[in-house]
Amino acid sequence: MSETVIGSRRPRIDAPDKVTGATRYAADGYIHGLLHARPVLSTEAHARIRAVHRDDALAVPGVVAVLVASDFPMAAGGGDRTSEPLAREEVVFAGQPVAIVVGESEAAAEDGAETVLVEYEPLEAVVDLEEAMQPGAALARLAEDSDDGGDLESIHAGVDHGEEEAEEEELSGNVLDRVNRSSGDAAAALEASDAVVSATFRTPWMYQAYIEPQVATAWLEPSGTLVVSTSTQGSFVTRSELARAFDLPLDRIRVIAEPLGGAFGGKFALVEPLVVGAALALRRPVRLVLTRAEDFQATNPASAQISHLRMGGRKDGTLTAIEARMIVDRGSNAGWGVEGITSLLVAGPYRWEAHNLRGYGVQTNRFTFGAYRAPGAPTAAFAVESLLDELAEELGIDPIELRLKNAVVEGDVGVSGNAFPAMGAVDVLERLQDHALWKNRASLPEGEGVGVAAGYWPGGNEPAAAVCRVDTDGTMTVVTSAADMSGVNTGFAAIAAAAFGLSPDKVRVVSADTATGPYAGASGGSKVTYTVGKAVLGAAEAARVKVLAAASEELEIAPGDLEVVDGVVRAKGAPDRSITVEEIARKALRFGGRYEPIEGHGGSAQTKSAPSVAGHLSHVRVDRETGEVELLAHVIAQDVGRALNPALVEGQMRGGATQGMGWALFEQLEHDEDGRLVTGSFLDYAIPLSDRVPDIDTLIVEVPAADGPFGAKGIGEAPVVAAPAAIANAVAAATGVRMRRLPMTAPRIWEALSSASEPA
Amino acid sequence: MSETVIGSRRPRIDAPDKVTGATRYAADGYIHGLLHARPVLSTEAHARIRAVHRDDALAVPGVVAVLVASDFPMAAGGGDRTSEPLAREEVVFAGQPVAIVVGESEAAAEDGAETVLVEYEPLEAVVDLEEAMQPGAALARLAEDSDDGGDLESIHAGVDHGEEEAEEEELSGNVLDRVNRSSGDAAAALEASDAVVSATFRTPWMYQAYIEPQVATAWLEPSGTLVVSTSTQGSFVTRSELARAFDLPLDRIRVIAEPLGGAFGGKFALVEPLVVGAALALRRPVRLVLTRAEDFQATNPASAQISHLRMGGRKDGTLTAIEARMIVDRGSNAGWGVEGITSLLVAGPYRWEAHNLRGYGVQTNRFTFGAYRAPGAPTAAFAVESLLDELAEELGIDPIELRLKNAVVEGDVGVSGNAFPAMGAVDVLERLQDHALWKNRASLPEGEGVGVAAGYWPGGNEPAAAVCRVDTDGTMTVVTSAADMSGVNTGFAAIAAAAFGLSPDKVRVVSADTATGPYAGASGGSKVTYTVGKAVLGAAEAARVKVLAAASEELEIAPGDLEVVDGVVRAKGAPDRSITVEEIARKALRFGGRYEPIEGHGGSAQTKSAPSVAGHLSHVRVDRETGEVELLAHVIAQDVGRALNPALVEGQMRGGATQGMGWALFEQLEHDEDGRLVTGSFLDYAIPLSDRVPDIDTLIVEVPAADGPFGAKGIGEAPVVAAPAAIANAVAAATGVRMRRLPMTAPRIWEALSSASEPA
Repeated sequence: MSETVIGSRRPRIDAPDKVTGATRYAADGYIHGLLHARPVLSTEAHARIRAVHRDDALAVPGVVAVLVASDFPMAAGGGDRTSEPLAREEVVFAGQPVAIVVGESEAAAEDGAETVLVEYEPLEAVVDLEEAMQPGAALARLAEDSDDGGDLESIHAGVDHGEEEAEEEELSGNVLDRVNRSSGDAAAALEASDAVVSATFRTPWMYQAYIEPQVATAWLEPSGTLVVSTSTQGSFVTRSELARAFDLPLDRIRVIAEPLGGAFGGKFALVEPLVVGAALALRRPVRLVLTRAEDFQATNPASAQISHLRMGGRKDGTLTAIEARMIVDRGSNAGWGVEGITSLLVAGPYRWEAHNLRGYGVQTNRFTFGAYRAPGAPTAAFAVESLLDELAEELGIDPIELRLKNAVVEGDVGVSGNAFPAMGAVDVLERLQDHALWKNRASLPEGEGVGVAAGYWPGGNEPAAAVCRVDTDGTMTVVTSAADMSGVNTGFAAIAAAAFGLSPDKVRVVSADTATGPYAGASGGSKVTYTVGKAVLGAAEAARVKVLAAASEELEIAPGDLEVVDGVVRAKGAPDRSITVEEIARKALRFGGRYEPIEGHGGSAQTKSAPSVAGHLSHVRVDRETGEVELLAHVIAQDVGRALNPALVEGQMRGGATQGMGWALFEQLEHDEDGRLVTGSFLDYAIPLSDRVPDIDTLIVEVPAADGPFGAKGIGEAPVVAAPAAIANAVAAATGVRMRRLPMTAPRIWEALSSASEPA
Repeated sequence: MSETVIGSRRPRIDAPDKVTGATRYAADGYIHGLLHARPVLSTEAHARIRAVHRDDALAVPGVVAVLVASDFPMAAGGGDRTSEPLAREEVVFAGQPVAIVVGESEAAAEDGAETVLVEYEPLEAVVDLEEAMQPGAALARLAEDSDDGGDLESIHAGVDHGEEEAEEEELSGNVLDRVNRSSGDAAAALEASDAVVSATFRTPWMYQAYIEPQVATAWLEPSGTLVVSTSTQGSFVTRSELARAFDLPLDRIRVIAEPLGGAFGGKFALVEPLVVGAALALRRPVRLVLTRAEDFQATNPASAQISHLRMGGRKDGTLTAIEARMIVDRGSNAGWGVEGITSLLVAGPYRWEAHNLRGYGVQTNRFTFGAYRAPGAPTAAFAVESLLDELAEELGIDPIELRLKNAVVEGDVGVSGNAFPAMGAVDVLERLQDHALWKNRASLPEGEGVGVAAGYWPGGNEPAAAVCRVDTDGTMTVVTSAADMSGVNTGFAAIAAAAFGLSPDKVRVVSADTATGPYAGASGGSKVTYTVGKAVLGAAEAARVKVLAAASEELEIAPGDLEVVDGVVRAKGAPDRSITVEEIARKALRFGGRYEPIEGHGGSAQTKSAPSVAGHLSHVRVDRETGEVELLAHVIAQDVGRALNPALVEGQMRGGATQGMGWALFEQLEHDEDGRLVTGSFLDYAIPLSDRVPDIDTLIVEVPAADGPFGAKGIGEAPVVAAPAAIANAVAAATGVRMRRLPMTAPRIWEALSSASEPA
């Protein structure tokens, strides 16, 4: 295998089409007879629907139909968004779709939607997360039917829940799930510690803020096949979810995952059921492109969380025990939540002698919770990494030293009960320790500080397949069904090129749809390169076997004595005896050809996890007069296994760090006391603009994943995890004040500084 | 492997959509901004184009452009239809496209086309085939550039040309190709024979008469990819032909082979260049749907042929030698012709002690020759099988006995120089000999007769690939890039089902396009089941390996001790220990799944030919007063290797025999002396309607092809080969008069009967 392409910087293969506007996104395709949909969103956070008055809307010229839940030909039951795309009797959050208006034009649908009058019988809105848990609290959902989470649950919450608690705490019916992980006697261990710190951390609902709002189109082919063209992270999971919700055979549905305009975990079978229901009801093609305002209100942002944490250590720097109580606001998501993963990740990449980690998934009348890059991880890292700094201070130990002393190494058993594979926690921390920003932090001016934090993402696994095909021009086509997110296709090209022996310039990567594509899971969980990429590797190797077999006959040299280098098959040690891949392909792919097509199929079933760890240094200046934080510099070091393409890896590192800056300083979705969103536009919801983002120094650490293609592991999620915590620690270093609520807005910091400077 | 599905009658899987009108053919898809094209066809058979006056057409409302050859962005040179979709300076047949009018509507394009005035400078039209060969004959094409035939030559004329002739005959420049196959001293062998017969046979140009006229649509994606949606027999060959003609990289072109509405060899890159040229010139989608009249004039029917044949035999029934001079009218097709294959097949499925077989490919100003079911074979069989009957009569031997005595068996070396594999020539003839129609032929009334004839088709080979994928519902998808012609997809389903261990009801077959599909050659040459079917077999077996591996872990039984029966993996001998394929697929295709996707890829590279032989009995009544032939009964016996699905096999046998009836009695494309078509509609060109077609008795003979999937071989072409000859022999039996020109129309027979009854 030629590995020279592995590790070389190459542009993303999707970039030219994207920057020239040639990419056809899901909203761009023209469908004959297309109808346009506009949802009617609930204005109430919790209410019974008394009536939906459609007559005015139907009188609008161009309006074809106003559809409510009962108009959709769906399977019975299920309270998840896929099964209940339109509220049935009860609305459970403000922004929930109640009806959908379908018109011949977008304008007609919009005019129609504005005239639909929904009569509600208000119910008590459950908005406060802690109150929601209390015994006797009003319920956020009265209806009995809830959902099983379908295939999405396994994708997002595929983490075991630990042991059942011996004594059940008495909590309200809003608490849908409890997680309990414990080992050893954490209370006793804390009692025996030299220092114990504890605090409560709060993080808000967070919007994924993809550039492309959610969009899907559905139509019936004359044969009865339902085609769904959509901006999704997963074609096969969308197919199975739609089949479940609409009680259709899998092969009646063909899902085309169009090029994504961003997703970050939020694009899973959320809008597809709306257009599928309408298309099935009306027997015409229907498209829904959410407006940005609708996307803010009606989709599935990351949940708010309250994290109570206590930990202890000994003077020698040994961490003793950790106790956590992680309260996750699921909103209306009855199917799944991140209480499992966040209560796992709150232990960080560290060894603890004992732990007692609890998670609670609580329903409220806010949104429907969804996934957002490393779901449950930034919240956990914010808590544990803030508190570790406090513990270091209590123990009089350098924060990186404390982390290094306890950082997990291969074989350490984590709080999941599984041993960690090789993961560069130590390496990453050492790279940060050596960085000038850290070394020189003592000499910073007043009001500046440097913070450190580390975090990891365990990485998902899902079986996958891929096909590689060589054409008569000697180029290769890689076919997968993975959605090209974060540049994975560019990685596939490198993997295939290196495994086969071609220049990556000669490899194109094509996404197939569910009708013909090899299986791939959703692009999420930092698993695509690790799992689908492994299948691509296998496919390219299988194709290589074919080309070697043919070349062996042509050259009369045993396959084992041949190598493929840059598109040429040649004798090892005698490169003059050679034949090009193109020549062989031309001999094979013709009438009367004597060689099998130069094609291969690869399958993968990764069973070992390949976690990625990332550590950050943040350098901030805090204006004590205003509380304003200025980000001066940022360093991220990440163990990426093997950087298939350092340029893309760095892009992920920078993007993750930048989203972490949003967590830290800017972003929050807020509701009023009635549960109505008050930050429903980019005027109210601030994401980090480029003038607020400092230079980001990227340090790539490579601890190969044993089973990864060329050692690569999934790297998309790890870089966001500890970024907010590092910035919080930097703010503490700059000000001496601990911020325990995100985002650390100027008013909050100003207030904290004011309180801290008041005389005792 | 479960083989119970092999050999069982099942309906075609494409039938429900076709009979309910749900199939979306190439002319049906809606493309946004589509323009419609209408060709301007040459009224001259041979002329220089002086000028094309476009102004009147451009003044027609809705006409967007009138394009001539120089407007198309094509690679230089090449005189074939793909390289020269519009005549450049010289038109070489009446009906050749000279310009294309593109309009916003079909009506606008048609109105525009009617007003385009082409000024011609007439050149001598070469219409008579024998005159065309004579030294000094006018040339049918003056331009120097001819073509290399591209990939189509290898598909259609992939037969070696034998040795070069020692003494070159002096012939005109219209003779583009000469073939000479000889072995032994044929002249001497004939001299020494007990009987020698000779005759000249003439066959006309024949139209493929597919139901769906030729149609293609081309457009550019925003990314620059050229998409061609077309009614074609081969997506990959269309892609390579277009890439050659327009000098484009392969991956710039995506060819979608839409469901075929009939093809019979005639649909190969003929209309695609017209729409591609227009779409590239105009940067808008362009569709061309030929009218039936255009399809008659402007496409590529089967060539006319003159076959001079002489053969001898001994009294013991041994065939001695055969001499042939096969003159093939290529029309304007400079690239390839059937002189190679027809001079091979004229030897029939018989042993000869010596042979001297010559073929001549001659250009004229009639059409462009193309392929039509078993190209060059019915013409050859008409000659050899007619003359064999005459020889049998001369030798006083029963016609079937004569054939049986000389029929090839496995290992006999044919005139190609290659040994025949097992082929059921003897079996087929014996089945006919045993048939009541043959046995009772002596007792027929006056004016009736029974004729026999046999012929074979060698069968093509081309490497192919396929993918099988099992979904979570336990169903299988077979993906190939083969055009579904003559029911091959239904055969694939049976092959995959039997190889894997599923019911065929649970297998769907999907045709992929060139962007993502596994390689397949064109559907033609009776090779799809034999080659692509073999790849499907391999793919299903590879998928079975995956399911056995997973089941082995689940059941804790070694894979070799497991079997897959009707979707259940179970222990051999202990069927209670089992798990369904569906269960395994559900365990594999999920987040955290531990088994590779149940998918497999198969490749094939058949190197042995798998010829199919078919024999016919025809029972006719000839009305001596009118010359009218009534077909009373027809029997076809065919060696199909293994009948994967007897219902479909019989359909091919009936269809082939019926087309042979068209050859025999009805069909001919005729030109006037200036080379203008005078039979350009179904009013003038008679195909066998159902009221003229008798019951056809089908006798399936199974001599397995060693390398075929379950022993199957290609069977589509063989059934047409000897049908016309059998009918001619029946007419001779009924009348005592030999018809040596097809079709045997009533006037011709009446004339022949009249001449024969005249006093000597």
